[in-house]
Amino acid sequence: MAHNSKNIYYLTGFMSTGGAYLLVPKDSEPILWISKLEWNRAKEEAENCDLRMIKQRSKVIKTLSKELHDSKLKKVGFDEIEVREYLGLIKEWRGEMKNGVQLIWNLRKVKDDEEIAIMKEAAKLADLGVQVALDTAVPGIDEFRVAAEAEYAMRIKQSEGTAFETIVASGPRSAFPHGPPTKRKIQKGDLVVVDIGAIFRNYRSDITRTIVAGRPSKKQREIFDTVIEAQEIAFKRYKDKMKCSLVDRTARSLITKKGYGKYFIHGLGHGIGLDIHEPPTVSPNSRDQLEKGCLVSNEPGIYIPGVGGLRVEDMIQVGQNSGERITLTPRRIRL
Amino acid sequence: MAHNSKNIYYLTGFMSTGGAYLLVPKDSEPILWISKLEWNRAKEEAENCDLRMIKQRSKVIKTLSKELHDSKLKKVGFDEIEVREYLGLIKEWRGEMKNGVQLIWNLRKVKDDEEIAIMKEAAKLADLGVQVALDTAVPGIDEFRVAAEAEYAMRIKQSEGTAFETIVASGPRSAFPHGPPTKRKIQKGDLVVVDIGAIFRNYRSDITRTIVAGRPSKKQREIFDTVIEAQEIAFKRYKDKMKCSLVDRTARSLITKKGYGKYFIHGLGHGIGLDIHEPPTVSPNSRDQLEKGCLVSNEPGIYIPGVGGLRVEDMIQVGQNSGERITLTPRRIRL
Repeated sequence: MAHNSKNIYYLTGFMSTGGAYLLVPKDSEPILWISKLEWNRAKEEAENCDLRMIKQRSKVIKTLSKELHDSKLKKVGFDEIEVREYLGLIKEWRGEMKNGVQLIWNLRKVKDDEEIAIMKEAAKLADLGVQVALDTAVPGIDEFRVAAEAEYAMRIKQSEGTAFETIVASGPRSAFPHGPPTKRKIQKGDLVVVDIGAIFRNYRSDITRTIVAGRPSKKQREIFDTVIEAQEIAFKRYKDKMKCSLVDRTARSLITKKGYGKYFIHGLGHGIGLDIHEPPTVSPNSRDQLEKGCLVSNEPGIYIPGVGGLRVEDMIQVGQNSGERITLTPRRIRL
Repeated sequence: MAHNSKNIYYLTGFMSTGGAYLLVPKDSEPILWISKLEWNRAKEEAENCDLRMIKQRSKVIKTLSKELHDSKLKKVGFDEIEVREYLGLIKEWRGEMKNGVQLIWNLRKVKDDEEIAIMKEAAKLADLGVQVALDTAVPGIDEFRVAAEAEYAMRIKQSEGTAFETIVASGPRSAFPHGPPTKRKIQKGDLVVVDIGAIFRNYRSDITRTIVAGRPSKKQREIFDTVIEAQEIAFKRYKDKMKCSLVDRTARSLITKKGYGKYFIHGLGHGIGLDIHEPPTVSPNSRDQLEKGCLVSNEPGIYIPGVGGLRVEDMIQVGQNSGERITLTPRRIRL
């Protein structure tokens, strides 16, 4: 049983705004419960399922339990439901509820050709956004303005929103890996990190570029070169059957060797798709493995508190023997 | 124990990007667990709590269980945790985990003066956005462009993003209560519904206006007048101690009397704050009650499939004896 809107979209083509449930029995047609509010849109968009209306939100557990009971199912896997729903279903239905989220991640983790094509369009929008951002990010301009121009450029080209909260972090703020825009005006010599993504046909994209507003210092260039080198060396490992922890280690060892290991404070990458962060996870303790068709970020970063930070990120399509970069903006801009 | 980022923000002033836990013992300082990634920002922003670092995500249940065990607590209320976490904590810690989400909603539901002041700023940004959208929405312009211009206007004035996915629904699409923008070009005589919100200091705003692109038909005006009349009559009931179901009924009865009852397919309103939809809920089956200081939408709508839809929405600050409209854009524009 799926409750997460993106899982339901993946299985039916209908994106609920929340509160829908999809039961997928082994031997019969899936059943999708949705509210009255979404009924007409679901009738047009939902495929491969029977529709049922949730007439009263407070009785949804009773309704689902009855259906489960009538279906003679003994065991149901779920993706993500509230504890309240879990306990309610167990009590009413008396069957076995098991965490089955891995079943659907196994499907979503590997993208098919249609998904890849859509995500390349999403990546193009992110490329556009980051380029507009970097063109805007000159001394005297505030971070909000940089985000506004970039998001406008993507939106007008039909991005369905931002894939996540856009990051524009300049000067000392660049040392925060997650720095949303502020009123701060960019100053000459600042590092400016822009991390931005678009949404196209519900799929997300994600790119990061860092520039210096003005002429880079020797130190800034050294950190930049280290990050680029780490990204390059890791890139070679974005291929089928590669252990994610090993991919992370490749980049991390290089950064550590250069003396910046303790400033690389996050994993090297994450899967991207309908969610901005999804399996597989590329980090030191990950047990995931890359597979052909995964779409995964490659984003080493170095963050020195009080000084500044620097990250470069691309989306990589994992192939049989090598990866393909699907974000195409040059990495070395004014650096 | 709070796990929801907005609840943690409400209690500490620190907005996590996810994966944080806040334990609030009865008699000692609250403890906030966060990842390494957020450590530096939390040190600057988190108030009224001790910080602990989550060193390894996979061991977080063990860590929390140990803390709960050492604290000698017997019973802990939680806001929203995954079923997996719930079952893990019960197994490791062996104490009682109870749904305590209502405790925090009781706090968040009523806004204090500082929150009201912030939300008025957020409402101003939404006013700006909807006004730009309506100025843009002329025949020949596509819905994406309308959203792009509106969102840009809010963003440049320091909106921290859109409060929810902006709705721009023109012509027959206006009959979907939730219609994100498409490539559709607005045509003469179309109803155009714009539902938009901003974020200011993490608080959200929400406004809807509907216009006709061109001269309204007699039928369009009749529906518009009905919606406005319903909104007006309901507005009088946005006061302390009023039952939410009764507020909804006031608007619904009027719309039903005019013959459009079956086309009013959602509740009249919802609380707004750090979340775009939060308690109290103003709907036929709601058991909530308004209280002085609640911030609640008032948004009757009529949606006729194949024909078109119309909604008008304002944010209302609930007062002792009367409400105050905090979204200020005129409702009757080209209609």
